[in-house]
Amino acid sequence: MLTNNLTNLLQIDYPIIQAPMAGGITTSALVAAVSNNGALGMIGAGYLSPTQLREQIREVKQLTANTFGVNLFVPSKFEVNDEDIEKATNLLYKFRSPLKIENENNTLPSMEKAVQAYNEQIQVIIEEKVPICSFTFGVPSIEIISQLKQDGIILIGTATTVVEAMAIEKLGMDAVVVQGSEAGGHRGNFISNHEDSLIGLMSLVPQVVDHVSIPVIAAGGIMDGRGLLASISLGAKAVQMGTAFLTCVESGAHPVHKEAILHAKDEDTTLTRAFSGKWARGIQNKFTIEMQEHEAEILMFPVQNSLTQTIRKASSSQNNKDFMSLWSGQSPTLAKNETVEALIQRVINHAERRTI
Amino acid sequence: MLTNNLTNLLQIDYPIIQAPMAGGITTSALVAAVSNNGALGMIGAGYLSPTQLREQIREVKQLTANTFGVNLFVPSKFEVNDEDIEKATNLLYKFRSPLKIENENNTLPSMEKAVQAYNEQIQVIIEEKVPICSFTFGVPSIEIISQLKQDGIILIGTATTVVEAMAIEKLGMDAVVVQGSEAGGHRGNFISNHEDSLIGLMSLVPQVVDHVSIPVIAAGGIMDGRGLLASISLGAKAVQMGTAFLTCVESGAHPVHKEAILHAKDEDTTLTRAFSGKWARGIQNKFTIEMQEHEAEILMFPVQNSLTQTIRKASSSQNNKDFMSLWSGQSPTLAKNETVEALIQRVINHAERRTI
Repeated sequence: MLTNNLTNLLQIDYPIIQAPMAGGITTSALVAAVSNNGALGMIGAGYLSPTQLREQIREVKQLTANTFGVNLFVPSKFEVNDEDIEKATNLLYKFRSPLKIENENNTLPSMEKAVQAYNEQIQVIIEEKVPICSFTFGVPSIEIISQLKQDGIILIGTATTVVEAMAIEKLGMDAVVVQGSEAGGHRGNFISNHEDSLIGLMSLVPQVVDHVSIPVIAAGGIMDGRGLLASISLGAKAVQMGTAFLTCVESGAHPVHKEAILHAKDEDTTLTRAFSGKWARGIQNKFTIEMQEHEAEILMFPVQNSLTQTIRKASSSQNNKDFMSLWSGQSPTLAKNETVEALIQRVINHAERRTI
Repeated sequence: MLTNNLTNLLQIDYPIIQAPMAGGITTSALVAAVSNNGALGMIGAGYLSPTQLREQIREVKQLTANTFGVNLFVPSKFEVNDEDIEKATNLLYKFRSPLKIENENNTLPSMEKAVQAYNEQIQVIIEEKVPICSFTFGVPSIEIISQLKQDGIILIGTATTVVEAMAIEKLGMDAVVVQGSEAGGHRGNFISNHEDSLIGLMSLVPQVVDHVSIPVIAAGGIMDGRGLLASISLGAKAVQMGTAFLTCVESGAHPVHKEAILHAKDEDTTLTRAFSGKWARGIQNKFTIEMQEHEAEILMFPVQNSLTQTIRKASSSQNNKDFMSLWSGQSPTLAKNETVEALIQRVINHAERRTI
């Protein structure tokens, strides 16, 4: 029951994928430990330059002989308008003083540069013969898909609704991650609107399974063997776990971020656009609460993300959780600080005890 | 695996409870068919007068010799203010003309009457020796709990977060329904606030199971054997299914309501306070969309419920889905129009095939 057509395709022992969390969490040590322990390690490359991505891929290859993957953000159109930027910058001004920020060094993103970096990331993946590539925030073009498929790279899309999963299958991708409303970090909706796409996994998985024939990977709030067995019962072929790996010893998440999750209650997460401009789930803090009433002034991704960079960095370096993005799914009370090996063994031992 | 301490306590063959949907859906035919087919039928008595409740209990007893239950709404404080009522009434005025409503016959609720009716409902349950009683929108007083327990009535609470489930256990109730964010109809949160209590079942069930020792019943988006097995994998002892029974032949739901669910997509539900003043999930329609921007003017439950009564009734009698409350969980594409017997057999056959 724990191996199937998807584990065969991905060449992994266990139907567990480590979610490709961007922003320094998926260190090479984390990715390699996951792959070395029979699951699939993933580099969250959304914020990596093509050069950084190439370096990390080579580092991971040094640490594991097993398959691993890379996740990319698909760039979508955004416009930068001086007046809105001034408004959003002024709004953020009040957070500078508690953090003693003097110089603002945020560089604004440009659409052309974002697309160029993405195209270069794709070339790095091809050149480095990365076995598996997943995508979030949209789907790659038909040209990129056929280029990657020609090179035998396995492609995984991310969907939040039935219609998005069907679009991913239609493009010829090999599997689909379905992200339930429980999931931590950024929402992956790209056709459905934000509110409509907040569907719990208990509803989402079987409905997607009934509408596509590619393997479905369940993501959101899954932390242990119970979540794995439940996902498989619903028709998924594997799970993608984020928060569970984030608090592991090998993860590069800030210690303050790990502690915030380890001390949180089930109802402590919130959905916010305040950090990046895209809806994402994390532990509530001073920043998410104070920005709640300014929803209308928050700019689009990735512009807002650039504007909050100084604040997030200063907060991290001061070990101050008030202004950091503390991404977490809805199951923080199930998080543990343990090694990747201990986590994977715990999940698998439970699942094997309960199955035939 | 399908029988356990909870099925023994409730004296049912299968770990399936029919959700006590109020407002005419849980006809005696539905409740009795569920109990006659090995699951637990429940009368949704929230809007029934004590006399109506007594009549329905006697009717159900005529139709089944098996156990069944009654669900009550626990009244909570509300205040009626003339100025707000005038504003809310004016806001609803524009919906009268498309429905050709001439006379407004809404009677406003009073707190004293609500409490009196609730106390009388409790007496009816004791006098009629109803075996099982569940509660929503709060918890009964210690006095009522001890009175019901003295008579051997099994008590079930409804929780949306860990802290609510722990409160229910502490009061000495026998089991707890945990309502995930997937659930259709009214939200049952009574300690946690609305937004924080929208937790998907994949996260909610295992976290509650780890914090209470009374049996946990999973509710929200569960429609078939896959959902039952998933819930049991997560640690639940049974499931409570609403939408799945709502579209059954024996249900008293309006045919327009059933059709709306049978034709809906996964992303077609929304959370709204527009109908009753309490957050509830249903299929989006003209009324929920037009009321979205008037959130601040919507009154508390049950005042808003009284104010929209004429509109809901006229819409129903005209077979017009635009202004009816079309409660539904997040899995409408899994709904079928079949008999209760066929539904229960389908769920159980799937679950038994997959278990040892």
